[in-house]
Amino acid sequence: MSLRNLAHLQPEVVLRAVPQSLIDALEFRFAAQCSTAMAVREQHGRDESVYDVPPPAAVVFAQNTQDVADAVQLAALYKVPVIPFGAGSSLEGHLLAVQGGISIDVSRMDQVLSINAEDLTVTVQPGVTRMGVNNAVKSEGLFFPIDPGADASIGGMAATRASGTNAVRYGTMRENVLALEVVTASGEVIRTGTRAKKSSAGYDLTRLMVGSEGTLGVITEVTLKLYPLPEAISAATCSFPTIEAAVRTVIQVIQLGVPIARCELIDANTVRMVNAHSKLGLREEHMLLMEFHGSPASVKEQAETVQEIASEFEGNAFQWATTPEERTRLWTARHNAYFAAIQSKPGCRAISTDTCVPISKLADCLLDSVAEADASGIPYFLVGHVGDGNFHFGYLIDPTIPEERERAEQLNNQLVARALSLEGTCTGEHGVGLHKMDFLLTEAGSGAVDMMRTIKRALDPYNILNPGKIFKG
Amino acid sequence: MSLRNLAHLQPEVVLRAVPQSLIDALEFRFAAQCSTAMAVREQHGRDESVYDVPPPAAVVFAQNTQDVADAVQLAALYKVPVIPFGAGSSLEGHLLAVQGGISIDVSRMDQVLSINAEDLTVTVQPGVTRMGVNNAVKSEGLFFPIDPGADASIGGMAATRASGTNAVRYGTMRENVLALEVVTASGEVIRTGTRAKKSSAGYDLTRLMVGSEGTLGVITEVTLKLYPLPEAISAATCSFPTIEAAVRTVIQVIQLGVPIARCELIDANTVRMVNAHSKLGLREEHMLLMEFHGSPASVKEQAETVQEIASEFEGNAFQWATTPEERTRLWTARHNAYFAAIQSKPGCRAISTDTCVPISKLADCLLDSVAEADASGIPYFLVGHVGDGNFHFGYLIDPTIPEERERAEQLNNQLVARALSLEGTCTGEHGVGLHKMDFLLTEAGSGAVDMMRTIKRALDPYNILNPGKIFKG
Repeated sequence: MSLRNLAHLQPEVVLRAVPQSLIDALEFRFAAQCSTAMAVREQHGRDESVYDVPPPAAVVFAQNTQDVADAVQLAALYKVPVIPFGAGSSLEGHLLAVQGGISIDVSRMDQVLSINAEDLTVTVQPGVTRMGVNNAVKSEGLFFPIDPGADASIGGMAATRASGTNAVRYGTMRENVLALEVVTASGEVIRTGTRAKKSSAGYDLTRLMVGSEGTLGVITEVTLKLYPLPEAISAATCSFPTIEAAVRTVIQVIQLGVPIARCELIDANTVRMVNAHSKLGLREEHMLLMEFHGSPASVKEQAETVQEIASEFEGNAFQWATTPEERTRLWTARHNAYFAAIQSKPGCRAISTDTCVPISKLADCLLDSVAEADASGIPYFLVGHVGDGNFHFGYLIDPTIPEERERAEQLNNQLVARALSLEGTCTGEHGVGLHKMDFLLTEAGSGAVDMMRTIKRALDPYNILNPGKIFKG
Repeated sequence: MSLRNLAHLQPEVVLRAVPQSLIDALEFRFAAQCSTAMAVREQHGRDESVYDVPPPAAVVFAQNTQDVADAVQLAALYKVPVIPFGAGSSLEGHLLAVQGGISIDVSRMDQVLSINAEDLTVTVQPGVTRMGVNNAVKSEGLFFPIDPGADASIGGMAATRASGTNAVRYGTMRENVLALEVVTASGEVIRTGTRAKKSSAGYDLTRLMVGSEGTLGVITEVTLKLYPLPEAISAATCSFPTIEAAVRTVIQVIQLGVPIARCELIDANTVRMVNAHSKLGLREEHMLLMEFHGSPASVKEQAETVQEIASEFEGNAFQWATTPEERTRLWTARHNAYFAAIQSKPGCRAISTDTCVPISKLADCLLDSVAEADASGIPYFLVGHVGDGNFHFGYLIDPTIPEERERAEQLNNQLVARALSLEGTCTGEHGVGLHKMDFLLTEAGSGAVDMMRTIKRALDPYNILNPGKIFKG
């Protein structure tokens, strides 16, 4: 099954004209908030993907919704693309100006607008990061669980339907965004949703915007669900002789309905990289890194159940981390796995995979893909939100050697084909961006992608909102 | 604040022509599966709403997706409306043929297509009811929690984004539909979503279809999340001296993060109606009806916490129901509250409200509305999924007395205005249908409703899919 033509590893770049009069108008309206300096443009024309395309023509640093609306209105007048920019941590080329245009940087829109502790909600501007949210609500005894690793902006997390390590218990941005303020393609400001926990009031525009990757509107405000900080939290690592044993343990934990809060797989090789990077001294075996939330009794009960299951699969060396410091150390190491891996091969870049399959198919999908990766000779890291059936290979390639890139993309193709044949998805949490457009077509089918395109054309007739992402045309 | 003109209590009815040649074609294609008998048409032109409009011109009883696709294609050829019909339990006029057309009854599409116990998913045809799902998956030790009271069809529940008594813990159809098969306005069959638990693969068409009330497509297959049957289940009633005391108890339970599975308010008057109808002998005071799910230890812990909170608010007479029979008896009584109320005033109809507010606003919203309803002199029942901030008044009116209807609608208007001013929604779970179109406009604003309309026009250019619902034109 050939999902894509490997001859085309670069995205299609067709720059649309950005008239000088638009730049002049932006500079007049935004003064020092508008920059055309090459360094600034380049910083906004690049993300964590492997692509290399020309930067946007200008960057507008929005400070409020009106700034965004005005920038979009000016761009709309000239039919010039606008690309929202938060923390720049996308992995899929979301931020790249493949059709030229201007970047709207919302990172200065970093105010927490209101905390409603009694309702377990918080409303923030899109440039607030996930850590920013957590710092703001901690003193209320609350937390925001969605944690993609990077300290991403909430706007970007909403736009890519992000999730991460806590999703197995708390869901993804899909489940945790209650309401949005959005600037549409014409520069109009609309609101979607309310602070009510549930609603049947018309089309679910909130969920349509969440995951639309900046192609249907620019998110200017987000209302999120919060959760009471658990009374007790306990983290543990457990080592396994094989990846299969670890995965079988996870499958059983999920199928029994244990409300585990985090359940991460790190393969032995990646544990070695993490040890080297973070000086952790973890046992260099395949490992599950888990966290339990609840009352002390419930945490104890969950942990006992999981230990029993793990021992059936030769899991051993349960190591507990109950103090906040120990836990932070463990999770920081997990989050740094990407950087640890990058550092293990100087000058390399990582091509990340993001498949997600039903839990019953996880072992099949993962083990066959490990065998393929091993056979390829390309070094890789392997981490996974395996409680959700989601895992990431990061193939470490030398960007100056096209054959490595091709081999890695071929592995990714095979993995995606396998995941789709197992009723899974090509992307659990990173989004489509530039990298997975062909995969999306295979996964969703041309009818569903045509429906997406029809919606896009109706809501953005001049195709100015982050064009060239998710699907062609 | 006047949300709607009370002079217009009937929906606008503008019948579009249904050519005889379309009826002939449907009869040729569907033979005995197509009926134009008046009794059948009338049964499909009526729901639980108060409206009275002419029935559809014909009813097609679809037995599979191809039947639906063929019926829609024929209707599209003649630009004639199609209205999907499941169990007919809508409260908001969703099924009514206000622009004429044909009804597509999917109740015979009642097959459970596959149960994936390991993945906690089930795939069903749209005519399977929620009880049908539960009967099918029970032997696997699983259940489907969404319970709107009526034994509604899964297709209809998805189309209206239904929820009900278990939503406080398990979410609504929004959170529990994983994937859909849908027939579009052109009669094409598309699939949205996969069986993966999470995905970032393009626009969330699944969530766009869920709650679209048949206006964007006809749902022909639904993949749902399931849950392991809890190891322990315990239900309890607790009486309170005032509605406020009951509501304050609920607010604190939710704010503490107790994972209560059901948390229903029934006011004293409604308890009386329920006693009369179901011979239950409940204490005729304001009551919370609760259910706890989990391990035996967790259920005990939750119940103790709630009892402590309730006792702070003078809650007393906790009565436990731990056997399945006792629980079934209690919940059946709760589900029958609507019918118990209808029977309390022979010949009456109920005008149901459905507001939902953030939990911190629940007491304000509810108590002021109770005072208004009491002052009006119109009898009513009051039940609520108060753990979600959602509650229903049912104003019991004599349909032959227009003034009663007007007074009830006026109460509803005031309640909705109040809920919206408290950052809530006009409909927590019933949908917009015909009844709440003006409310939606006030709630979402013209910009957001225009966006919905733009999507509708793009996906259904001839406006044949359940036209005249959610918004005008």
